[in-house]
Amino acid sequence: MNNASARTDARAAVTVLGLGEMGFALAGAFLDGGHPTTVWNRSPEKADPLVARGAERAATARDAVAAGSLVIVSVKGNATARAVLEASGDALAGRSVLNLTDGTSAEARGVAEWVRGQGARYLHGQIMTIAPGIGAAETVVFYGGSDAVFHDFRPALRLIGGRGTLISADAGVPALYGMAVHGTMWGALNGFLHAAALLSSEGIEAKRFLDEAGPSVAALLGSFPMIADEVDRGEYATRFGALQHHLPSVEDLVRESRERNVDSEFPGHTLGLVTRAVEDGHGGDSYSRLVEYLRQF
Amino acid sequence: MNNASARTDARAAVTVLGLGEMGFALAGAFLDGGHPTTVWNRSPEKADPLVARGAERAATARDAVAAGSLVIVSVKGNATARAVLEASGDALAGRSVLNLTDGTSAEARGVAEWVRGQGARYLHGQIMTIAPGIGAAETVVFYGGSDAVFHDFRPALRLIGGRGTLISADAGVPALYGMAVHGTMWGALNGFLHAAALLSSEGIEAKRFLDEAGPSVAALLGSFPMIADEVDRGEYATRFGALQHHLPSVEDLVRESRERNVDSEFPGHTLGLVTRAVEDGHGGDSYSRLVEYLRQF
Repeated sequence: MNNASARTDARAAVTVLGLGEMGFALAGAFLDGGHPTTVWNRSPEKADPLVARGAERAATARDAVAAGSLVIVSVKGNATARAVLEASGDALAGRSVLNLTDGTSAEARGVAEWVRGQGARYLHGQIMTIAPGIGAAETVVFYGGSDAVFHDFRPALRLIGGRGTLISADAGVPALYGMAVHGTMWGALNGFLHAAALLSSEGIEAKRFLDEAGPSVAALLGSFPMIADEVDRGEYATRFGALQHHLPSVEDLVRESRERNVDSEFPGHTLGLVTRAVEDGHGGDSYSRLVEYLRQF
Repeated sequence: MNNASARTDARAAVTVLGLGEMGFALAGAFLDGGHPTTVWNRSPEKADPLVARGAERAATARDAVAAGSLVIVSVKGNATARAVLEASGDALAGRSVLNLTDGTSAEARGVAEWVRGQGARYLHGQIMTIAPGIGAAETVVFYGGSDAVFHDFRPALRLIGGRGTLISADAGVPALYGMAVHGTMWGALNGFLHAAALLSSEGIEAKRFLDEAGPSVAALLGSFPMIADEVDRGEYATRFGALQHHLPSVEDLVRESRERNVDSEFPGHTLGLVTRAVEDGHGGDSYSRLVEYLRQF
């Protein structure tokens, strides 16, 4: 049985379906780690450099699946992930599937359910780096799904990234974690780029601003744990930094943006949220109150 | 002359115009620091607790100005700041004005120009804390304007916040710095609260997410210096993490938000920016390219 051998074999046979930038990096990491590695890609020539490094090229997805105890899927979108797995038919039974394909939580759950219906175990992974970060000690991967797959293939998983955590038995949760990290980052980056646009309209370099004001930015971002606590308790009362004190400052930012021909939609969105909350009588509450306005039940 | 005495007197006579939450805290800090402190407020009874601590209450703004070598203004809006200073007439000549009133850069410059026209020196300060943070060693104040005021009154300025920096000879720049810090913070907080809304729709606490994913968030925010460098050079070419790789992830976030009845306007704004840049042929560029779409010349 593949499962049984996987539990004792630190060099489990690994199959990689999909050789995009990420799949290619993954296959390379398993080869470097000494795992028998079988690869498949719709355009088979993508595998050439991997075959030169010792990989087996399978002619079909089914053949590839049949060669591995750990079957990794890394394609564009979960509709494709599922189609590739469906093409493998009954070869999936008894194997372990690790799907590293990006998508929504519902999509990941859909693939998980189908895979388990084939008698295979399912783990979903959200890789928090880009292809060149594969294998790095600091690379984070959020896993959700089968505890057994996570533990049985620990040596192989460590080759993906040094900081892999099983965060949930639910295959949909890793996608949510990835989105939460990226969404926070996009928000911060948009805010910073908007600030850079404002500063550059005055001829001030972003680097100079960071050198002089970086600690202020970092200090304000240090408020996340306090914000998280308020959000989790659903209690937003605060003695300091209430929404009514944010309001005139957000208004200033919108006016300054307009006067300088810098985008006012981004700060305008913040102004809309703060204004609504203050109008609803929450002016004395912390900024964390705005989470209620982002939930639209 | 007031100027001459200020240069040698570590306990300069300070006047505080405006006793809102911030002005009140400022006057208290100067009293605690041993400065002869004169206060004025439109509603004079606000000064009662300060008078009890040794402050002089002036009957008019003009009397207050006449009593101080350093005249501090802390009111709501620069239109009010200017009106209060105008009411002081020729008493301003030869004094040093420190305006700590929030507003846009153009407003600060307007007040600066008028004050200098009265034969007074002008410094603008952007206080990066709320009233209870006044006087703390870690409190940051961005100053812009007269180098002489900044240096002559250093001991008094230290009582406002331990980390005061003169960032520009231009009185408008502190407001821009403040907006850049706050705008980055609002972007990050909006992103984080949006993430919290998404996670809570799955029953996941924000604190649990921060405990498990906090380092990933911090690592991504660590990209600010690289982003700043790209923005300053106006060169956005990148080998990794190009906009075309962000695009499907932002699309996933928008879809996931809709499916969970979480606000999709905030990620939708990001999606709009990324889509436009990719459509314009910048898919191979770094996220920092988006600064060009926030500048709307």
